[in-house]
Amino acid sequence: MQLDITLAATLFDTLDRATRRGRGIVRDSFGDGEQAAHDIVRAAAASLNLEISVDAIGNLMMTLPGRDRSAPRIIIGSHLDSSPQSGNFDGAAGVVAGVCVVAALKRAGRQLDCDVTVMGIRAEESSWFNISYLGSGGAFGLLDPACLAITRSDNGRSLEETLLARGFDPQPIREQRALLDSSRIRAYLELHIEQGPTLVAERLPAAAVTGIRGCKRFRNARCIGQYAHSGAVNRQHRHDAVAATVALLQHLDTVWTTYEQRGADLTITCGELYTDAAFHAPSKIAGDVRFVIDIRSVSQGIMDEVAAEARRAAARCGDAYRVAFDLGTTSDSPPAVMDDRLRAGILSQLRQPYEMPSGAGHDAAVFAKMGIPTGMIFVRNENGSHNPDEAMTMDDFDTGARALLGLLLNFPP
Amino acid sequence: MQLDITLAATLFDTLDRATRRGRGIVRDSFGDGEQAAHDIVRAAAASLNLEISVDAIGNLMMTLPGRDRSAPRIIIGSHLDSSPQSGNFDGAAGVVAGVCVVAALKRAGRQLDCDVTVMGIRAEESSWFNISYLGSGGAFGLLDPACLAITRSDNGRSLEETLLARGFDPQPIREQRALLDSSRIRAYLELHIEQGPTLVAERLPAAAVTGIRGCKRFRNARCIGQYAHSGAVNRQHRHDAVAATVALLQHLDTVWTTYEQRGADLTITCGELYTDAAFHAPSKIAGDVRFVIDIRSVSQGIMDEVAAEARRAAARCGDAYRVAFDLGTTSDSPPAVMDDRLRAGILSQLRQPYEMPSGAGHDAAVFAKMGIPTGMIFVRNENGSHNPDEAMTMDDFDTGARALLGLLLNFPP
Repeated sequence: MQLDITLAATLFDTLDRATRRGRGIVRDSFGDGEQAAHDIVRAAAASLNLEISVDAIGNLMMTLPGRDRSAPRIIIGSHLDSSPQSGNFDGAAGVVAGVCVVAALKRAGRQLDCDVTVMGIRAEESSWFNISYLGSGGAFGLLDPACLAITRSDNGRSLEETLLARGFDPQPIREQRALLDSSRIRAYLELHIEQGPTLVAERLPAAAVTGIRGCKRFRNARCIGQYAHSGAVNRQHRHDAVAATVALLQHLDTVWTTYEQRGADLTITCGELYTDAAFHAPSKIAGDVRFVIDIRSVSQGIMDEVAAEARRAAARCGDAYRVAFDLGTTSDSPPAVMDDRLRAGILSQLRQPYEMPSGAGHDAAVFAKMGIPTGMIFVRNENGSHNPDEAMTMDDFDTGARALLGLLLNFPP
Repeated sequence: MQLDITLAATLFDTLDRATRRGRGIVRDSFGDGEQAAHDIVRAAAASLNLEISVDAIGNLMMTLPGRDRSAPRIIIGSHLDSSPQSGNFDGAAGVVAGVCVVAALKRAGRQLDCDVTVMGIRAEESSWFNISYLGSGGAFGLLDPACLAITRSDNGRSLEETLLARGFDPQPIREQRALLDSSRIRAYLELHIEQGPTLVAERLPAAAVTGIRGCKRFRNARCIGQYAHSGAVNRQHRHDAVAATVALLQHLDTVWTTYEQRGADLTITCGELYTDAAFHAPSKIAGDVRFVIDIRSVSQGIMDEVAAEARRAAARCGDAYRVAFDLGTTSDSPPAVMDDRLRAGILSQLRQPYEMPSGAGHDAAVFAKMGIPTGMIFVRNENGSHNPDEAMTMDDFDTGARALLGLLLNFPP
């Protein structure tokens, strides 16, 4: 069965042109950028004559009916939002793959035994509302209703306000009411670009994913010192928030090295770190630093250990530098394991079978958490993701999407 | 000989009431606030019957004649402007001290062998025209004439326009013409509040200053890495600008400790440090960090050594973390060393002799640069300076001013 790669290329190109802002892609969660992507994909689904619906919080469901409409369905999904100044493929590739696969089935007149729904999921990225998986988590009633008060990082509008302005309904979130019945979902499949350099290094176009690293994150860590003149205050009288934060982060780098040497799965990252532009100056000791500590592993135990060590180290560095650390609470997403049979099924579709963990979180983790058999395909991608230089070739995309199609045509019973 | 501390208290109180705007003091350089301070001090000098003149750019000269009017004179000076929302003592304390000392000599009928001029210096702070030492630098023809085009940070009026509006003459600045002949100045003395916490911590009212620290600053340092997903890229494939910058700054902290252990004078400060808010995210490895390294010492050699080590360390950390550091050029202000005999003279006037460097710059640095023997006295002050919470007690001021008077009465020949 042929996959129409021209359809994919056209969709990617249209998405790119609609949502590129300067150098990078901006598909702000529940904002105009994400909506533009939903409109484009929806138009493609409409021209394929799929059954289209949008749930209360904006997830887009595009269904190719199966022989038995009452049988639990297969969902092929991913998200259509992006982090700020991102690339064109993180998220969108999975939705475009779903549309292409369904288009191929449709064109071949091939009806599966159950419905196949391509799901354009809302708001997977945490960049805008400081919470991941709003779309998939919301679809299963998993969100803490308090999230409705979270304000968007750029415009300060609450999630509730934002949903209402877009014509969606915050009520299911408030009631923690599921919009999808997990017992009615046979499997969840997601194709996604690899966000790391492994497949490039291994010279492989695609891989089956074994599991998704969890994430434990100090999202709003802060160090409070005291502003003072840089030349007029000696070390022993300083309350230097930068020096203390540097010492803490350097220590965590050492902690990471120790785990690595044991062969344990772990990453520790500080990707946001900043003094206060309204107060800092070249001739001032910094009195305030804000930062993020992002801890990831396929092992919940390791993440818990590292977070505990971060708190102990912050207390020690606080004492040593006469400052106060407030690491705040962690936001947690647990690790997720992929379904063995789906994993094997994907592997069998790859000419060069390869398996690897996913370092990044994906909506697939939410479906796996709901007990739904879940499978993921990674497609090779240069330059990582969440940056304007993401680069996936259409050849590699084709390899991944064909594996998805092959899996559907040979679905484990 | 008695010092009339009531005169000082009255002058401080009058200055405070005339120039407090909300919580803090505002004596804007060449503006109404500074002028009000000049008018108050001038009135006090007039009632003491001092010889009063104002130079072309507004510096106020108040002279008590000596026995030999043709002998090189002693100048006691400081500035009468303040940074915005500052305290009452930064600058003014030195001028009030000069007036009180001269008043004491006058009341005692004591004539020194040379003239003593109290100098109310204009525009020492860089807050208003983004340049320091306009008054003292202008008095020695040291200013770049291009400074006349600098606009005031709050009202956008050029320095030239501002001088003319106040009735002063920009011509000497344009011609780089000196208004003071350095060969006709026997010594320059300045009393100033300490802008750091050392005297508070040491429980001492006043100190002799050993020198004014120079500053060598990497103002626009930058680390360029590569943005990537925090969970998806293992250590060996990262180009993490934060991790590299943390390693560099931590190394410089160690360098500082090494110099400290040798008893060398040094501060190393990073007071500005930030990832790019338009690109950073909790789930991104940072691809760009900007920061400042501010190096200060009374020794030019030490500053040069540390700057060279910073460049070597940046190269090493760049290699280790696969990123590129661009520290840029340094901006430099040289240290100023106080005259040994004046320093010893001041020390001998203190009941609890104590010496320390000045971390901040002062007009005294300009006089020292001109080869004029220069001495400085620091007076204890709580809460730093350039903020409304500056706090100097009149007892401590009395200790400092009496040391100044004692030095004049026992001036090294």
